Amino acid sequence: MQNTVVRFVKRPQGFVDESSFAIEPAPMPQPAEGQVVLRAFYHSLDPYMRPRMTETDSYIAPFELGQVMEGGGLAVVVESRHPDYKSGDVVRGMLQWAEYQVATPGPAMLRLERGHAPWTHYLGVLGPASLTAYVGLKLIGEPKSGETLFVSAAAGAVGSIAVQIGKLRGCRVVGSAGHDDKVAWLRDELKLDAAFNYRTVASVGAALSQHCPQGIDIDFENVGGATLQAVLDRIRPHGRIIMCGAISEYNEPGPGLERIFRIVSHKVRMQGFIVSEHFDLMPAFIADMEQWLREGRIKYRETVIEGIENMPRALIGLFRGENFGKLIARIGDEPV
Amino acid sequence: MQNTVVRFVKRPQGFVDESSFAIEPAPMPQPAEGQVVLRAFYHSLDPYMRPRMTETDSYIAPFELGQVMEGGGLAVVVESRHPDYKSGDVVRGMLQWAEYQVATPGPAMLRLERGHAPWTHYLGVLGPASLTAYVGLKLIGEPKSGETLFVSAAAGAVGSIAVQIGKLRGCRVVGSAGHDDKVAWLRDELKLDAAFNYRTVASVGAALSQHCPQGIDIDFENVGGATLQAVLDRIRPHGRIIMCGAISEYNEPGPGLERIFRIVSHKVRMQGFIVSEHFDLMPAFIADMEQWLREGRIKYRETVIEGIENMPRALIGLFRGENFGKLIARIGDEPV
Repeated sequence: MQNTVVRFVKRPQGFVDESSFAIEPAPMPQPAEGQVVLRAFYHSLDPYMRPRMTETDSYIAPFELGQVMEGGGLAVVVESRHPDYKSGDVVRGMLQWAEYQVATPGPAMLRLERGHAPWTHYLGVLGPASLTAYVGLKLIGEPKSGETLFVSAAAGAVGSIAVQIGKLRGCRVVGSAGHDDKVAWLRDELKLDAAFNYRTVASVGAALSQHCPQGIDIDFENVGGATLQAVLDRIRPHGRIIMCGAISEYNEPGPGLERIFRIVSHKVRMQGFIVSEHFDLMPAFIADMEQWLREGRIKYRETVIEGIENMPRALIGLFRGENFGKLIARIGDEPV
Repeated sequence: MQNTVVRFVKRPQGFVDESSFAIEPAPMPQPAEGQVVLRAFYHSLDPYMRPRMTETDSYIAPFELGQVMEGGGLAVVVESRHPDYKSGDVVRGMLQWAEYQVATPGPAMLRLERGHAPWTHYLGVLGPASLTAYVGLKLIGEPKSGETLFVSAAAGAVGSIAVQIGKLRGCRVVGSAGHDDKVAWLRDELKLDAAFNYRTVASVGAALSQHCPQGIDIDFENVGGATLQAVLDRIRPHGRIIMCGAISEYNEPGPGLERIFRIVSHKVRMQGFIVSEHFDLMPAFIADMEQWLREGRIKYRETVIEGIENMPRALIGLFRGENFGKLIARIGDEPV
């Protein structure tokens, strides 16, 4: 049997390209006592991976040059030298970008029971990205009925859940995305009160003035840069800016945020969070989300690309907005 | 008797100068039924007055061209047509920059009893500026023993109280100011762990790296601009940035705030507030502060300038850091 891994080999300067990655054959891993061999079959591709390519102090260690890339994924145990695991068990965890790998089961590895949901949902609508939307709104946004919620990157994995939870909470919800088909989906399928294509409007500020004439109570911020500036300029008193991400600034520095005094004058709470600190909310989230899915109140899109060798290109495409909803790589067959 | 008022006559472009003000004689005011005539004797001069000179949507209406300037002040009732007030009563309220004025008593006007404290304390250490420090730390900063608190404009009315409350809470406290004598006072009298002159250090960032080697847990932000950037670049995980003011940006726009993603990655809470929304905390604050003053645990400086005609110049000087501690104008004799 042949193994393939993707290594991180060059820190990107500016926009990441394929030269940062090397796709290489690798030996089949051999488990020590207490370890398992995993065969990965789905991998999650997420914006936060770009900041990890930069050497900076952050919530998560930067990728080291030469290391195998890693990210959230699903895998099946194909060999076990751990007493609690057996062949055929399916797990979710932080996995290497590798077809086969050894792992030492620990608290970050979760065994999944085969349920009614497709496996991809455990990386998407029932996974960390979706929990991110839930946690950000619950702990920072605190949406109240009648408030205006704006979500940038609203057709993405996190944004598309955030807009729908906002609607469930009774908010007036406005979203932005970078393609007309995403905008149509937000408006027609997810029933947003308004949505716009940030690439084709005169300016994000003008679009926000049009669609949020009373200003913005809650911003679920995924983009940063000019979008965040336009929000801050239209924030309402006691507004909350949920700082989830700043994808527009991951590859190249964004413009500085001006008119910071509005945070004082409008008594704004601007707060960042990292979902992995809030996994204690996973059970409550799963219970809520499974009910919403049963009731048809949450809709969901995913983009699945094929093959470990295409993961670098797909991740790069994520920063160009090429995905629709959750971006997942299928790198092997689902377990039977 | 002669009355004098200060009118706001020109919106400043950039740094405010005396041409924005006109000092004019005015008729003695005549009270209607339910009104009182006030003779102001102390006026508070505060940074927030500069944003009010700009036509913008904010927490408080901008000054109108031609209107008499206003701000917090102390006055004595010299004539009353209100059943609850009599000549000789002393009040604190939002007053015109006028020697004499009529006022309709309401919830924003507080009658002060003559206590042991000098009258100026009711605009300073026992007044709204000091409450601002108390509220910001209590509601947003939530200081814990051993944490590092940085306070900009630390020798100012708000900052000098914030640093001392920080010490009382067991924080390691570092402050910045713009004159060596203020720095000496912060270090020698207020017993800060470190203080520096932001005008003479190589950069605020370098000074913060030196004096906060572990980073900053709490920032009591009064300055904005390059100071806030230096803080954000050194904020610790779960840091709190208490957005109280941005005096460096009031007269001229500051540099944009870059590396906003640190708010996400470091799970930072950056929150603005306006003290007037928290006057419910005044009794608890007064009780705490009077005890601290009795115990000698809070020290206090004020700069008192003389004469209503010098108020514009003194306010302009506030933005150049010419005051030491609370800046107050004495525009008439204290009541006997």
